[in-house]
Amino acid sequence: MAEKEKVTIVVFSGDLDKALASFNIATTAASMGMDVTMFFTFWGLNVIKKNEGPLKSKGLMRKMLNWMNRGGSRRLPLSKFHLFGLGTWMMKKLMGEVRMPPPEDMIATAKRLGVKFVACNTSMGVMGLGEDAFIPEVDSFAGAATFLGEARKSTVNLFI
Amino acid sequence: MAEKEKVTIVVFSGDLDKALASFNIATTAASMGMDVTMFFTFWGLNVIKKNEGPLKSKGLMRKMLNWMNRGGSRRLPLSKFHLFGLGTWMMKKLMGEVRMPPPEDMIATAKRLGVKFVACNTSMGVMGLGEDAFIPEVDSFAGAATFLGEARKSTVNLFI
Amino acid sequence: MAEKEKVTIVVFSGDLDKALASFNIATTAASMGMDVTMFFTFWGLNVIKKNEGPLKSKGLMRKMLNWMNRGGSRRLPLSKFHLFGLGTWMMKKLMGEVRMPPPEDMIATAKRLGVKFVACNTSMGVMGLGEDAFIPEVDSFAGAATFLGEARKSTVNLFI
Repeated sequence: MAEKEKVTIVVFSGDLDKALASFNIATTAASMGMDVTMFFTFWGLNVIKKNEGPLKSKGLMRKMLNWMNRGGSRRLPLSKFHLFGLGTWMMKKLMGEVRMPPPEDMIATAKRLGVKFVACNTSMGVMGLGEDAFIPEVDSFAGAATFLGEARKSTVNLFI
Repeated sequence: MAEKEKVTIVVFSGDLDKALASFNIATTAASMGMDVTMFFTFWGLNVIKKNEGPLKSKGLMRKMLNWMNRGGSRRLPLSKFHLFGLGTWMMKKLMGEVRMPPPEDMIATAKRLGVKFVACNTSMGVMGLGEDAFIPEVDSFAGAATFLGEARKSTVNLFI
Repeated sequence: MAEKEKVTIVVFSGDLDKALASFNIATTAASMGMDVTMFFTFWGLNVIKKNEGPLKSKGLMRKMLNWMNRGGSRRLPLSKFHLFGLGTWMMKKLMGEVRMPPPEDMIATAKRLGVKFVACNTSMGVMGLGEDAFIPEVDSFAGAATFLGEARKSTVNLFI
């Protein structure tokens, strides 16, 4: 059987606007029959962090980092015009009016369409995050070698 | 007849520096005989907005967004050192001294070389922008499926 | 003899986090036997500037730009939470604790693995930088045509 065409997206950014672009491309590609992998790294880990509860980590510096950089799909800021939350709230209202789903619903849709979620365990190590910091939709925890293994077989590669 | 090699660039950013990088790559690829599509989305729509006149949109929030995020190739800020316009003005002066054209001239050159401009109609819907907000050089208005249709046939794909 | 699989990375950003992601992918790909080219452009030139001494350039505006935008692998700021240097210092401490090398060591590792470094001479022209502003690890100085020549033969292309 022929292998399906592949799309691999590195989600480096933890900004709402870039997360939306990533999921829009990922779900469209999946619904066109392509095999999609999203590789979340660095600030992009925020997109797939649990929305509830504190993040456990050891040491004062990591606790501070994870407090400032709490993340979770419902807390992503816009890269521009965040305006202490006002601009981001407005953008979500505008999206709702044209029936564009918020990121937490896009995650569910992506999973239903078979999009694979990989969390970068190198970034997790630096930030002191364990697997329990992430939503159950994450399929695996891996590093750059796994990413490159997918990317070299992909027709479309994007770094977002 | 063999199809020409393709390059597809997503222009997500509305920053001057990233727009320059996009056009530099696009026009160089086109002059090397490649078939280039630029897909402008989210803040990247600013690059291809008309420079003149107000942008029409309905509702208070969209009016506010389009006032703050006016765009147009002559108004793009640098991603760093914009400094309330001073840094951006200086960068354009420096570019002029080495005869690098400003973005509005790069748009004209790109079109002359056959680069295709696509505006993302999903972002347009969220921001309440109609086709009349954009320069006439835009070839078409389309979404992620059209982008992926081009990208899967492209030798080089970039997300900028 | 078959040509080796190629990876081409545009390093447009001068941020520490994006530089780390670039080198992580580049060194992993090289150690997997792939032929890797990193093309440093615009703010990304900061990554490969010499860490020592002033940068020579002519004219008041270029002197100001190169003073504000000094660069060098030891001076790269985080794209978020730089906090006047405190956040960036903390991130480097956290990296050290999990034995992740700082960017200056990643440069050395990349070179040892045969990664090629190209500096964009178009950006150098705008910023008034000569070849003496850069570390000796840079292999060549070239523009978009050289980049596209590599990119069109690459299995994986990323713009970071």
